[in-house]
Amino acid sequence: MSEKTKARKAALREKLIELAEAQIAAEGLSSLRARSLAKEAGCAVGAIYTHFDDLNALTLEVNGRTFRRLGAKVAEAVAESASQPPRDRLIAMSHAYLYFAAEQPSLWRALFDVEMSTEGPVPQWYMDALGGLFSYISEPLAEIFPDMHEQDLDLMTRALFSSVHGIVLLGLEQRISGVPLPLLKKMIAQILSRIS
Amino acid sequence: MSEKTKARKAALREKLIELAEAQIAAEGLSSLRARSLAKEAGCAVGAIYTHFDDLNALTLEVNGRTFRRLGAKVAEAVAESASQPPRDRLIAMSHAYLYFAAEQPSLWRALFDVEMSTEGPVPQWYMDALGGLFSYISEPLAEIFPDMHEQDLDLMTRALFSSVHGIVLLGLEQRISGVPLPLLKKMIAQILSRIS
Repeated sequence: MSEKTKARKAALREKLIELAEAQIAAEGLSSLRARSLAKEAGCAVGAIYTHFDDLNALTLEVNGRTFRRLGAKVAEAVAESASQPPRDRLIAMSHAYLYFAAEQPSLWRALFDVEMSTEGPVPQWYMDALGGLFSYISEPLAEIFPDMHEQDLDLMTRALFSSVHGIVLLGLEQRISGVPLPLLKKMIAQILSRIS
Repeated sequence: MSEKTKARKAALREKLIELAEAQIAAEGLSSLRARSLAKEAGCAVGAIYTHFDDLNALTLEVNGRTFRRLGAKVAEAVAESASQPPRDRLIAMSHAYLYFAAEQPSLWRALFDVEMSTEGPVPQWYMDALGGLFSYISEPLAEIFPDMHEQDLDLMTRALFSSVHGIVLLGLEQRISGVPLPLLKKMIAQILSRIS
């Protein structure tokens, strides 16, 4: 393959990821269609499948970007609250998670709605990204519970992440228990400040 | 309309709800198709739409049944734990919620995945069913926090429901942070027993 062909292929791959990202952001994961993507990218439908096994694999690429942006936002909140007590740091990073989800609801939902179970094991980078988020949580938790065994701390970390995720998820769904952002922030703080 | 016609119509309506329920339970909400339903029910596709505005309205009927079964399970746990301290009652009802979701994952998911926002207000019976679940939670919470204002108690109730929901949701998803049932039970108990 010539360098020029390689570069053209790489550019198409990048373009497809960007178009898929824009489509998911605008109309949600379920609106993604190979035919429309190909049309927008100016390529044949088949060309998509030379770059990605299926639309799911393409979505995972989009999710990779979303995860990195989310991680950066949480890291920012962690850095800004570094001098605060551990519960306040947990609240600060959870609020960053909430803001991110509220600003990019469709891209955030796609992180969790993409099918992975049918494709064998979850990709390693995915687990690493999630592990990164978890480690932000387990650090202040270890300060709150200095005597907790590692295994319990790990479980508590997942439980707290899932709790905040549940509050954000149901809170952002207008239909079921839609809650305005300031109240959502309060709900998260209420739970996290009362963990002892 | 003759009595016989009325009875036949009612029977078809019931049959369609049952078939939709079986389909959602077996293959998930996204597998529901009017054409397949009509074929199974032995009616024309159009006959479905004389009974329901769309498949969404049919799903809401299925969800109504699911909600009633879920409510009965939680009520059972509440009754069985009536003599226990408030945190243990919260844990008992949350575990009942977990068991129900684990046994009927697709029907349980459909409670939250159905589109409602596009259809105007959420039906009143839906809000009532959710309100019923919330009231089970707010009662022990009011014992734990006797001085909390009603508004904060309401927020705390939603926050705890959402937290347990998040733990169950992510825990049951094999792909992201799949956790075996006994550990999920422990995660829920860890959070709820530490609220103070």
